[in-house]
Amino acid sequence: MTVRERIEALQGLMKRRGVDVYIVPSADFHQSEYVGDYFKAREFLTGFTGSAGTAVITKERSALWTDGRYFLQAEAQLADTGIYLQKAGMAGVPTLEAYLKDVLPRGGCIGFDGRTIGAMTGKNYEKIAKEKEGSIVCQEDLIGEIWKDRPALSREPAFTLDDSYAGEPVASKLKRLRDRMRQLGADVHILTSLDDIGWLLNIRGNDVAYCPLVLSYAMIRLESVELYADAEKFSVSIQKNFQEQHVELCPYDTICEQIRKLSEEYTVLVDPQRINYALYQEIPKNVRVIEAENPTILMKAVKNDTEVKHIRRAHLKDGVAVTKFMYWLKTQMGKKAITELDASSKLEAFRAEQEHFLGPSFAPISAYGEHAAIVHYSATEQSNIELEQRGFYLSDTGGHYLEGSTDITRTIALGELTEEEKRDFTMVAAGMLHLADAVFLEGCTGMNLDYAARAPFWKKGKDFHHGTGHGVGYLGNIHEPPVTFNWIQRSRKRYPLEKNMVITDEPGIYVEGSHGIRTENELLVCQGERNAYGQFLYFEPLTLAPIDLDAIVPEQLTEEECELLNAYHRKVYETISPYLSQKENDWLKIYTRSIGKS
Amino acid sequence: MTVRERIEALQGLMKRRGVDVYIVPSADFHQSEYVGDYFKAREFLTGFTGSAGTAVITKERSALWTDGRYFLQAEAQLADTGIYLQKAGMAGVPTLEAYLKDVLPRGGCIGFDGRTIGAMTGKNYEKIAKEKEGSIVCQEDLIGEIWKDRPALSREPAFTLDDSYAGEPVASKLKRLRDRMRQLGADVHILTSLDDIGWLLNIRGNDVAYCPLVLSYAMIRLESVELYADAEKFSVSIQKNFQEQHVELCPYDTICEQIRKLSEEYTVLVDPQRINYALYQEIPKNVRVIEAENPTILMKAVKNDTEVKHIRRAHLKDGVAVTKFMYWLKTQMGKKAITELDASSKLEAFRAEQEHFLGPSFAPISAYGEHAAIVHYSATEQSNIELEQRGFYLSDTGGHYLEGSTDITRTIALGELTEEEKRDFTMVAAGMLHLADAVFLEGCTGMNLDYAARAPFWKKGKDFHHGTGHGVGYLGNIHEPPVTFNWIQRSRKRYPLEKNMVITDEPGIYVEGSHGIRTENELLVCQGERNAYGQFLYFEPLTLAPIDLDAIVPEQLTEEECELLNAYHRKVYETISPYLSQKENDWLKIYTRSIGKS
Repeated sequence: MTVRERIEALQGLMKRRGVDVYIVPSADFHQSEYVGDYFKAREFLTGFTGSAGTAVITKERSALWTDGRYFLQAEAQLADTGIYLQKAGMAGVPTLEAYLKDVLPRGGCIGFDGRTIGAMTGKNYEKIAKEKEGSIVCQEDLIGEIWKDRPALSREPAFTLDDSYAGEPVASKLKRLRDRMRQLGADVHILTSLDDIGWLLNIRGNDVAYCPLVLSYAMIRLESVELYADAEKFSVSIQKNFQEQHVELCPYDTICEQIRKLSEEYTVLVDPQRINYALYQEIPKNVRVIEAENPTILMKAVKNDTEVKHIRRAHLKDGVAVTKFMYWLKTQMGKKAITELDASSKLEAFRAEQEHFLGPSFAPISAYGEHAAIVHYSATEQSNIELEQRGFYLSDTGGHYLEGSTDITRTIALGELTEEEKRDFTMVAAGMLHLADAVFLEGCTGMNLDYAARAPFWKKGKDFHHGTGHGVGYLGNIHEPPVTFNWIQRSRKRYPLEKNMVITDEPGIYVEGSHGIRTENELLVCQGERNAYGQFLYFEPLTLAPIDLDAIVPEQLTEEECELLNAYHRKVYETISPYLSQKENDWLKIYTRSIGKS
Repeated sequence: MTVRERIEALQGLMKRRGVDVYIVPSADFHQSEYVGDYFKAREFLTGFTGSAGTAVITKERSALWTDGRYFLQAEAQLADTGIYLQKAGMAGVPTLEAYLKDVLPRGGCIGFDGRTIGAMTGKNYEKIAKEKEGSIVCQEDLIGEIWKDRPALSREPAFTLDDSYAGEPVASKLKRLRDRMRQLGADVHILTSLDDIGWLLNIRGNDVAYCPLVLSYAMIRLESVELYADAEKFSVSIQKNFQEQHVELCPYDTICEQIRKLSEEYTVLVDPQRINYALYQEIPKNVRVIEAENPTILMKAVKNDTEVKHIRRAHLKDGVAVTKFMYWLKTQMGKKAITELDASSKLEAFRAEQEHFLGPSFAPISAYGEHAAIVHYSATEQSNIELEQRGFYLSDTGGHYLEGSTDITRTIALGELTEEEKRDFTMVAAGMLHLADAVFLEGCTGMNLDYAARAPFWKKGKDFHHGTGHGVGYLGNIHEPPVTFNWIQRSRKRYPLEKNMVITDEPGIYVEGSHGIRTENELLVCQGERNAYGQFLYFEPLTLAPIDLDAIVPEQLTEEECELLNAYHRKVYETISPYLSQKENDWLKIYTRSIGKS
């Protein structure tokens, strides 16, 4: 079936069902960042394989929205499909919502699979339909009907995270959650985000690319839990544990009926930002609903001491792998051909040598030269190029270990650099180091501190168009809410940094057609002095790998900045060197040497 | 009449009117920061003269809430009055609202003069009364009935601010305001904040201590304006101007009836944060109300180029006065006795020598030694002490000139300093200079940048419990909304810094019983480079007076910090020195010399 045939088949179905506009996103039922093959409906329909994009199909016209990362790829993949590419954010390009308003005929019907759309977005579609005196249909998985060889839902086995890794027994987590439910006056909590469920029940799996999570929903009651998931995924011993915790296993797709059955005596807690529209609108109208953020979001973001102990260990292993990789790359350049994909495979191989490595924690970015200026570049067989002995190679990768997940970016000089490249690299390092050096009072958010990273940029009239950092999950999502570093306020709620939170620090600079540089360390929020002024906090760098001194111009750093870099490098050398070969060790010693005037 | 007699008289009146709890704040009808003598009802009733405090009187008990600045003073002034001091913010002290809930009997009545209470506070009292199935009475000025020799309302003449000073004709300001009213769908705007009215109509006066403003209300309609103010204050020529602008003068106290008369065909714009409760609740229930911030708040905060030109000139004059004062103080110490009040008079005298000086822009803080550790210390005849040849003297003062208003703090070494004092002074200077040196993208708020000032404190485990800066009015309120520097978010709305805004930069350190240090410059937001990353902004220091090098330890500053201080001092010397005597000039040259390694 060609893309044109698929769209025609869909349009035929739409006609029969009375649907005027059908929306096909690239999403699972859990608002996950990465999705399994079963959920790649938009890819199936349009042939566009990018991670972000939504297709909107009408009788006459097919259109696809994607963002700047994917304009070139989408143009190529949509050629000859008849699908019109809507470059989101570009001048003159309507938003998907504005387009919907425009193409929906009066009294028309918007259709979509409500399980793949967030509740807030679905409510928005509802509003648009209402304005046109029209309707919505959200139970029609029309793609499912035309997708004959659709991959099955993942059936990978789940596993338990022992208390020695999780650091807190399920009973204790449930107690904390139920206390919060009681505070809010709720007796049922519908939890649909996979990382929250994984954290709460100390289970992990392998159902989602790059995220060791189990496809599941949960309904937490004050005395019991229903876990909606494929029972086959759970061993007898896990099922026994569940019984002890009053966790009842129910088939994955039966949650809808259970929600529909909720009687008016219940008060239900849901997070409208995280539940899908299909489930959300199943909640009976006579049931009292409390809309609030999942309490597990903040609980999970504050790691416990056991997790912190393991996370340090995970970063030690990851640092060894990255350092070995940097040594390998620096010494192999010019000796043999290395492509972007080779480099990223090699780094994964170094990680795989480490104990308890489970896999990459997100789609690796392995970008040479001008590719690195594309912020979310992902090397494919088509784009893959060979590294040359000049300019920068950027590697933004991470691993899941049983001891936790890592996210590290290093930009590596492969040979001669221009003055601009060196100046930019030095500026990026200064920004990263200043933020990592912040000391702050309890109550501060990432928005208070972001300036520390950006000041070196802004003083030179430069900037980067992304946040400076994000929370990191423990064997969950690598981009874990709620804390971020950014200067622009994205949410109404403030999330102060708390002891034992983990957050990345990753300023960068991107010069289109030339080079891209990013240096990323993960930081652990630590408790400092408590005195009459309050409780002070500071950061401990978790990430341990050298920042390439070949690209640093010491004269462009202040004495203070040189000392920040030197102190970091001393820590890298002391921690990593025992795990290296003699040659690697000699190399690391040079690449972590003191720089600057003193 | 003693305080006890006054309270008894009030309690008698309360009984006759059926009022169970009567609330007496220290406020005028316009939510002003400083109030005229007529409005000092709480001072009359209780004898407590502090600028902040609210009395709550019941049949059995009198209590007064004030904040930390006034605990000692209130204790002294309330002794033997039978009034119970409620130290707001201290552990175990109920809030005024909690106390109200506690003392109000079921079905009881809360009374107050609704003109002296903000709409939001009044609504809160309403809610408390409702919870007790009680009522409120807000039209009872019971204090007025017992205050026989109450001072009259101020009748000071008003004056016009020529377009050559105001920079924008009234017609243009009215047009901008009316455009905004139309956008919001309003056809009447009730404006009650004095500085907004003064800005809009380019009028000033002398009705409020420290604020050159006219007691007035305004109702802005799409074609005309009603200005509610004492007609005697306006000269024939001002009245003629008013006629040309369709501004009709109405008696001050008739606004209530005009609001009551609004018919349902109107849509009224009011700022619930700035209108008093009496007016607010007069709006007929069938009139549509839009509650939004007064549009003039933001318009006024962005100074026009004419104002900016004048403001620079005002700061030049103010800088000359402060520099002369610093020279005088440094050279007179030890030669004659100088008290805190002497010093502040002398500084005012230096200001008065400058052309177009209208008066102090706020209650001066003139504090020696440990007094300076009291953040809002105001020297009185009782507290006044003599300056000694050791430690610090802190002067936080300002002037209104026809060219604008100033706010400057300098801390001056009067002789020997301890190591701690010098270290603290050097840290405060570093914080002030770092913030003044910020470069930032359009869209940034004071919250994004506050860290620049606090980082030098936080890295040493220190802090100051006040905002780092506030907007400054042009012959209006010295604390002008909406922009501030702070790390704690106080309002939901974000106020990005815009070109031509004026904001103070005033970090400080306060060591109880020892010393207090604050260094304050005003900053002008200036437009910098515009490039692919966006529009950059930076600050120009408006304040021009030396930062006392006798208290700076160059070794405790980075090279960068030394250069920031040296660059500032070069500017001070170049700008101020032409206006000084030879001796003052020689002194300034030494006190603005370059420090540091280079």
